[in-house]
Amino acid sequence: MAKRENISMSVIRRLPRYYRFLNQLKNMGVTRISSKELSEKMGSTASQIRQDLNCFGGFGQQGYGYSVEQLCREIGNILGIQNAHKCILIGVGNLGQAIALHLSFETQGFSLIGLFDSDPAKIGTKLHGCEIYSTDILPQFCEEHQPVMAILCVPRAAVPRLSDELYNLGIRSFWNFSHYDIAMKHPDTVVENVHLNDSLMTLCYRISDELLPRKDVIPDPAAEE
Amino acid sequence: MAKRENISMSVIRRLPRYYRFLNQLKNMGVTRISSKELSEKMGSTASQIRQDLNCFGGFGQQGYGYSVEQLCREIGNILGIQNAHKCILIGVGNLGQAIALHLSFETQGFSLIGLFDSDPAKIGTKLHGCEIYSTDILPQFCEEHQPVMAILCVPRAAVPRLSDELYNLGIRSFWNFSHYDIAMKHPDTVVENVHLNDSLMTLCYRISDELLPRKDVIPDPAAEE
Repeated sequence: MAKRENISMSVIRRLPRYYRFLNQLKNMGVTRISSKELSEKMGSTASQIRQDLNCFGGFGQQGYGYSVEQLCREIGNILGIQNAHKCILIGVGNLGQAIALHLSFETQGFSLIGLFDSDPAKIGTKLHGCEIYSTDILPQFCEEHQPVMAILCVPRAAVPRLSDELYNLGIRSFWNFSHYDIAMKHPDTVVENVHLNDSLMTLCYRISDELLPRKDVIPDPAAEE
Repeated sequence: MAKRENISMSVIRRLPRYYRFLNQLKNMGVTRISSKELSEKMGSTASQIRQDLNCFGGFGQQGYGYSVEQLCREIGNILGIQNAHKCILIGVGNLGQAIALHLSFETQGFSLIGLFDSDPAKIGTKLHGCEIYSTDILPQFCEEHQPVMAILCVPRAAVPRLSDELYNLGIRSFWNFSHYDIAMKHPDTVVENVHLNDSLMTLCYRISDELLPRKDVIPDPAAEE
């Protein structure tokens, strides 16, 4: 497959959700679905679905809808989940443990090959059968195993030095749970940030806003329970 | 403050990041900043910053830039972080523990008033001084304490029934870590989803795409290290 040019990040970010819904449909035994039916299930519009999928060449047949299994497989291929990109996780606290234990890396294009922590009490212990290594051995480990991605579950203060070190060891992709913007210093990295605090504050805004008195709006009695 | 109409979710989602950067600047002793300087630090554009802030009335003075402290406070007010929206967390596994222990709810507009689990081994134990209650007592607890938001850290399969129950107990806002779309069934809820699998798959796409041969593109020698 050749590199696809000019596909917007918003389209790309919708692909995992398509994949998720299609997988559920497949598991429920649905074999064929129209963009209209899919859009109703996903709370989207049929034209957006058709537009998004057309970015990758289009899969449906006019009037016949999509084959759920084929579309699911194709989107999986586009996402690259058949890969086993080697990754390491650094910071085996509660969050790191939750991620290491509960995510299915293998079905999502990755292979988790190492867990690291700087806490002597954790080093040498095992999590789900995997040994936790000292961050001191990152240079040897990276040279030997060549991971391409690092999952950062360490406190924010530790990230600048750690991300510099990992960058110098050849790692160019990060799944970053800290509130530090790695890509600002290293623009040639691929970073997916999970900013939990930002998500929580967005929720706070939305709740606070819901609770504010709505001016110039006459309450709609039909909307009341 | 009256309800603000027609502010797009993309603007709202950028506010926590402004708040985060401004807080860092404040802590570093910076008192004043221009939209240009702020945009350089944030990897954004000055005009986007001005446009975003103008949605809420605008704060800067032409030629003088923004007062960091004032802007930080104002954005905090817009986000509503001075609130203490009562929330409960359900599912005290590793992820639930990480969230309960490491997030500072009080500085982000919430007050975490209860932890719940259905595992008898966990019920009655304490986490960071807070007792873990049985999900069986949710009806009494909600009636007595009236939480407005629930954090869902339970497996996907448990969410449909649980979210229905919480909805019937009056909860209309959810911070949802499962891959189940609550708002599809209950459109009058406010839901912030944290879909870790989607984020991981997006990263997989971006890494896989980076590694693909780039057709019709002549390598730029200046871009090589």
